[in-house]
Amino acid sequence: MERIRTVEVGEHVGERVRVAGWLHSLRRLGGVNFLVVRDGWGIVQVVTESEAELGPLQGGVLGVESIVAVEGVVVSEAQAPGGVELHQPRIEVITPVPEVPPVPLNKRKITANIGTLLDHAVVTNRHPARRAVLRLGAGVMAGFRSTLIERGFTEIQTPKIVAAATESGANVFKLDYFGRPAFLAQSPQFYKQAMVGVFERVFEVGPVFRAEPHDTTRHINEYVSLDAEFGFIENHFTVMALLRDVIAGILTTLHEQYAAELKILQVKMPEVPEEIPHIFFPEAQELIYKRYKTDVRGEPDLSPQDERWLGEWARQEFGSDFLFVTGYPMRKRPFYTHRDLEHPEYSNSFDLLFRGTELVTGGQRLHLKYGMPPHGGFAIGLERLLMQLTGMNNIKLTTTFPRDLTRVTP
Amino acid sequence: MERIRTVEVGEHVGERVRVAGWLHSLRRLGGVNFLVVRDGWGIVQVVTESEAELGPLQGGVLGVESIVAVEGVVVSEAQAPGGVELHQPRIEVITPVPEVPPVPLNKRKITANIGTLLDHAVVTNRHPARRAVLRLGAGVMAGFRSTLIERGFTEIQTPKIVAAATESGANVFKLDYFGRPAFLAQSPQFYKQAMVGVFERVFEVGPVFRAEPHDTTRHINEYVSLDAEFGFIENHFTVMALLRDVIAGILTTLHEQYAAELKILQVKMPEVPEEIPHIFFPEAQELIYKRYKTDVRGEPDLSPQDERWLGEWARQEFGSDFLFVTGYPMRKRPFYTHRDLEHPEYSNSFDLLFRGTELVTGGQRLHLKYGMPPHGGFAIGLERLLMQLTGMNNIKLTTTFPRDLTRVTP
Repeated sequence: MERIRTVEVGEHVGERVRVAGWLHSLRRLGGVNFLVVRDGWGIVQVVTESEAELGPLQGGVLGVESIVAVEGVVVSEAQAPGGVELHQPRIEVITPVPEVPPVPLNKRKITANIGTLLDHAVVTNRHPARRAVLRLGAGVMAGFRSTLIERGFTEIQTPKIVAAATESGANVFKLDYFGRPAFLAQSPQFYKQAMVGVFERVFEVGPVFRAEPHDTTRHINEYVSLDAEFGFIENHFTVMALLRDVIAGILTTLHEQYAAELKILQVKMPEVPEEIPHIFFPEAQELIYKRYKTDVRGEPDLSPQDERWLGEWARQEFGSDFLFVTGYPMRKRPFYTHRDLEHPEYSNSFDLLFRGTELVTGGQRLHLKYGMPPHGGFAIGLERLLMQLTGMNNIKLTTTFPRDLTRVTP
Repeated sequence: MERIRTVEVGEHVGERVRVAGWLHSLRRLGGVNFLVVRDGWGIVQVVTESEAELGPLQGGVLGVESIVAVEGVVVSEAQAPGGVELHQPRIEVITPVPEVPPVPLNKRKITANIGTLLDHAVVTNRHPARRAVLRLGAGVMAGFRSTLIERGFTEIQTPKIVAAATESGANVFKLDYFGRPAFLAQSPQFYKQAMVGVFERVFEVGPVFRAEPHDTTRHINEYVSLDAEFGFIENHFTVMALLRDVIAGILTTLHEQYAAELKILQVKMPEVPEEIPHIFFPEAQELIYKRYKTDVRGEPDLSPQDERWLGEWARQEFGSDFLFVTGYPMRKRPFYTHRDLEHPEYSNSFDLLFRGTELVTGGQRLHLKYGMPPHGGFAIGLERLLMQLTGMNNIKLTTTFPRDLTRVTP
């Protein structure tokens, strides 16, 4: 019999079907055996009162995470996960597992501390709540790509081994490149700008490396950057308009194709306004002074508290979870940032705040040699976005195998 | 007036349109000025007999690669590239470029030697033939992803900074990770296997790093690997069936969406048979002995000449550009390869030959701890595939900014 996926079982009520996957749990309650099989997409419950029907699982010698195949009749049962369960099972063991997993995977919440959880990521990533976050990452990448491809962007891949630091000299990993020094790319910035000269509109999804010596809940040393860059812009507002569409495209993709994962994680999905409200940097500081009685005017950057206040204001004033702050001072922006010609101490750059925290940075860039149109772009940190969207309290929980100050395994 | 793309000009015969892009060339022939504008997608010719209509381009002070916008009336002209040209132009210069490009971009063929070409990749990647190759790369990635996503695969991103070599100890770049040694991933092999435990079917598109000290036309030290891995397979033949569909999906994507690039490069597209023929390793050696009178029986691997002979045979015998060789000896395959239980000195692995050269390697893997279904996968080198498909004579010509023994810039 052809195997079907657990998420397809509901379409076969009354029929006998075959599923296969991991033995997620096996419990006995008042003489009834409840078996849960987890495959790559979901779970399904198998119920039998017969000891004999447990077949090779009788006596409890085989542990959870054993690979099993189960044939059974699909029965509607409102109480069961997914609204269906399998009766009259015939059970096969494909790969027996005698070891007990280092962390239980069949509790609703995974309770291990984060160190244990990450040490055993090979196994703990299997937990339904863990894998829901990781799968949302696939959805974010898909939404990012499809929105940009629709708009004529070409996907590129640029080198990660580079001869010099791009963003700042200090936070860069050094490499032995056939006896010479080289570095790991902190961003694809100059490469994506150069490729605007080739394709006009480009994007890249790839790893970037930051040797930041901080061990916080918001830092990892290798992350996935969703980069876009394009030519023939008016100024940074053209870039902001594209970013608005990209964020909306990502959220639509998640909403339409990742509903199960959003439900597991109880994500409160934001709405993206047709036009995201924006405020000019010095006016944002003025607003904070008037509204929150704190004088940050003249500061070269916004503090996390400033961002929270601005997020609160955008929520109350515009009903928006998103807010653009534009025109950050030149002295706090990278050297490739384009100046605001009318207010030369400020830049044609922006941050996108989401629920009061910076989510994306972007802006217009300086032209390069050999003919470049006015151009600009942005970079979205995949893990940062997942963290803010799902409300995880640590960014390390949003990626498969995080790298931090002390962790290069697994 | 709203700008349109050069590739859209043909839809507007008789109308006045606006295009923008790079000044690709400017020639005068018998009192007529021929101007070619290149944008991110194609080129369009502008024709005028009037000196005055050249506007800011009069006198030739502005060089090619200047950024220009041109409005003009679309006229059918069979001789013009794309079958249309613009008349009665109004020309604006957006970014003037006084420098002469290091290599001419407006000749049909780019004639610089490969060193010059790569030194100036920022500019030379703009040449229509160069960028056609690079854009095909986007098509390959798109076809790879869409074929796998349709089949229930989840995209993953795995770390590139790792604690130990995966493929072999020697060819690995060493890194200073906060004072401790670490390495650049030679492949996502173990991570993708571990993620089969999470999602069952996974793929990744990302950089891999090989510190191979060879400077050949077939090696680069950083390349893009298209990796797939999945569970619940029968054996390596299940993997081969998927790979057949992936190759077919990639070629279909190129055929349907990248026709212009295939034409520029005069690519002779292969057909993928419903079932790609296959031959067992020792039988392939026997065949070479009988058909080509060369005794390679007992050799642990196939030589490039052996592969060419087998490719020739597949072409003549089955009319196929593709051939699977299965069951390579265990001693020449990585330690994670699954043995052929019936012929224990051989493995459940394969190579896919394309026109007599190895294109993809894959196979069934050993199970891991904690419950893994029988699983396997493959890895396609993006640049290798592009090289073989387009007939480029050097793999460095298939990637944006190649890395080799002496090259980490640009």
